[in-house]
Amino acid sequence: MNLITNSVSKQINELRNNVPLVHNITNYVTVNDVANVLLAIGASPIMADDIDETADITAISSALVINIGTLNKRTISSMVVSGKKANELGIPVVFDPVGAGASKLRNETTKEILSQVKIAILRGNLSEISFAAGLEVSTKGVDSSEADEKNDSVAVAKVVAKKFDCVVAITGAVDIISDGERVVKISNGHKMLSKVTGTGCMTTALVGAFAGSCNDYFTAAVGGVASMGIAGEIAFEKVGDLGTGSFRVAIIDALSKLDGNIISERVKLDEE
Amino acid sequence: MNLITNSVSKQINELRNNVPLVHNITNYVTVNDVANVLLAIGASPIMADDIDETADITAISSALVINIGTLNKRTISSMVVSGKKANELGIPVVFDPVGAGASKLRNETTKEILSQVKIAILRGNLSEISFAAGLEVSTKGVDSSEADEKNDSVAVAKVVAKKFDCVVAITGAVDIISDGERVVKISNGHKMLSKVTGTGCMTTALVGAFAGSCNDYFTAAVGGVASMGIAGEIAFEKVGDLGTGSFRVAIIDALSKLDGNIISERVKLDEE
Amino acid sequence: MNLITNSVSKQINELRNNVPLVHNITNYVTVNDVANVLLAIGASPIMADDIDETADITAISSALVINIGTLNKRTISSMVVSGKKANELGIPVVFDPVGAGASKLRNETTKEILSQVKIAILRGNLSEISFAAGLEVSTKGVDSSEADEKNDSVAVAKVVAKKFDCVVAITGAVDIISDGERVVKISNGHKMLSKVTGTGCMTTALVGAFAGSCNDYFTAAVGGVASMGIAGEIAFEKVGDLGTGSFRVAIIDALSKLDGNIISERVKLDEE
Repeated sequence: MNLITNSVSKQINELRNNVPLVHNITNYVTVNDVANVLLAIGASPIMADDIDETADITAISSALVINIGTLNKRTISSMVVSGKKANELGIPVVFDPVGAGASKLRNETTKEILSQVKIAILRGNLSEISFAAGLEVSTKGVDSSEADEKNDSVAVAKVVAKKFDCVVAITGAVDIISDGERVVKISNGHKMLSKVTGTGCMTTALVGAFAGSCNDYFTAAVGGVASMGIAGEIAFEKVGDLGTGSFRVAIIDALSKLDGNIISERVKLDEE
Repeated sequence: MNLITNSVSKQINELRNNVPLVHNITNYVTVNDVANVLLAIGASPIMADDIDETADITAISSALVINIGTLNKRTISSMVVSGKKANELGIPVVFDPVGAGASKLRNETTKEILSQVKIAILRGNLSEISFAAGLEVSTKGVDSSEADEKNDSVAVAKVVAKKFDCVVAITGAVDIISDGERVVKISNGHKMLSKVTGTGCMTTALVGAFAGSCNDYFTAAVGGVASMGIAGEIAFEKVGDLGTGSFRVAIIDALSKLDGNIISERVKLDEE
Repeated sequence: MNLITNSVSKQINELRNNVPLVHNITNYVTVNDVANVLLAIGASPIMADDIDETADITAISSALVINIGTLNKRTISSMVVSGKKANELGIPVVFDPVGAGASKLRNETTKEILSQVKIAILRGNLSEISFAAGLEVSTKGVDSSEADEKNDSVAVAKVVAKKFDCVVAITGAVDIISDGERVVKISNGHKMLSKVTGTGCMTTALVGAFAGSCNDYFTAAVGGVASMGIAGEIAFEKVGDLGTGSFRVAIIDALSKLDGNIISERVKLDEE
């Protein structure tokens, strides 16, 4: 078992002991699943987005997760205010630029957050992350564009990580985690994950749970991303081809049973 | 197999190939299920309701679904703006006037949308659709009032379809689809569907998925409505009387496995 | 079978006949589950939070449920306006001060609602209810703080019930219901309920369903709280240790099958 696998396995057990409070300013489409996966992995979720309380809630939390899936002007302000409060207090900020590239508002908001808030971990698909780096991309909605496959995920992850001095997690058929120097590839997961809404948002929240429980954000990103991939595999083994409704339930079941041993046995990661 | 059944069966297979992006301005109660049924049927969901991006998102979509289930002044403006953008670009608009008749705001919003936006398909229960036509109705909340059973669904569907030059889908124990001339009755479904929140919203979204994949909106309405009815039947056959939680999961399972063959074998439709 | 058990068993059967419309101004995290448990127990849910319709919706409802889980300035106004309308019309108001103590905004909103609206039933965990009474508490997010275990739940329930002349339901390992004089302890439930988001919100909604169907709010509170506890037990018996995703589905299954006989057989309550 290599070093990073060992660290992740330890971290998930510590996470279940620490029960970090994770503040989410997130979208209303997938928020219930986000709350349930946070509880399943051992964290405690709180959602708050009013400007009059958002910094107070961030201040009592162990991590802040910002997700622009259904952004609006009211919540954008809260994202920036909470992000700054988190920076001030040394609380890690995990950012998911959902649909970056799909509208001017998402583009400008992504830029605003990246310029005003120090991000610990940036999580998205190749299209979203490429956009954040100013690389040429075309986005179709909130799913990764086939057109973007031309970009090399590893190169993009490294460039963006250096640019924003953060950890970058690009999820896809193979997930890439980089801090600008180190690169880890994770080959867990199942293609049916793309047929359940919010598996990206849930992955980001899991990354937030890990980040709220340890100070090594690179390992935290690997932990959150690997957890979702492994849960997807276990879920498919259990429900097979029953359908995407049963698969979604089984993902949460798998996350609620996940521990260091299961991660050690199942994680498929390569360090470059 | 009659012509319309043949068309619907072809359309669902095309839908899975086309993967239409469906923009939803919808309520926060059932939005997650709406996203999951869109993915299950082969479409790609996107939710966006801020006035600064809503028209941009509509412009890249294949269909727009407007649902007033939890309307507020901020989102009502976005519905109108996106509806006009869709009209401008020839993108079909599917409208679900949830709870029309239950409050002055819902009544006025329904009228405003119907007067400012050209609707391709209007989907609701008899009470909601009757209200839209200015017929005398009493509404209790968001479920169809028994008092409305006096109205003849077929007559209402034809009148409203002619009035707004659109396809009307009135769902109930028997579903009625009309474009003002043609009328199709669909007898699929299961009474337990009324015990799961959002089956109406999900049906509207499915109609949006079909409309985003073909130009024949009459067939699209039949396809979306029939898909939910058939999924309800398959779900009940699978979970029986286990309860409404399992039934809801099984609906999504069934939609994710639905194809032209299953529709051909199971659909119960009569053309008048 | 004691009197209160007898009353609750009768009430759930009446509830299924009455199908009370329950207006919820609630949070977007758990709203879908809230709607589904209301349908499961035999009520009809409606969600509406815009100031231009909220009083109209309350006026046609049998109960109003206010939940501040994701409060914002827009919805806070609606909560107060709807609460006053309910008071004017004699419609019971059930209030769930989610996360009271976690931010100044939640504290002030809790105080504002309690001072401007006559509450029929107040439901929360010990931390939230203690805060409402001005007792010394520390709150960590939206879950009950261990630090609060020093407060005696029975004493807190009685004090708060007297202070606001309402029924108080404090849920936890043992649930306490008091109207200031009478006290009932309910020992149903399962620890896994704390690993599914929204079981508190769902309990509050169930209390709203019972209150919307009868005028005895003490019995209504016992009925709603006992229903969730019993459903949790039945759910665990069915899915065992499969995981929290399956457990959540089974809770809704169990609620949809609940009746007076099941409650009579299973409820574990002590009157003090």
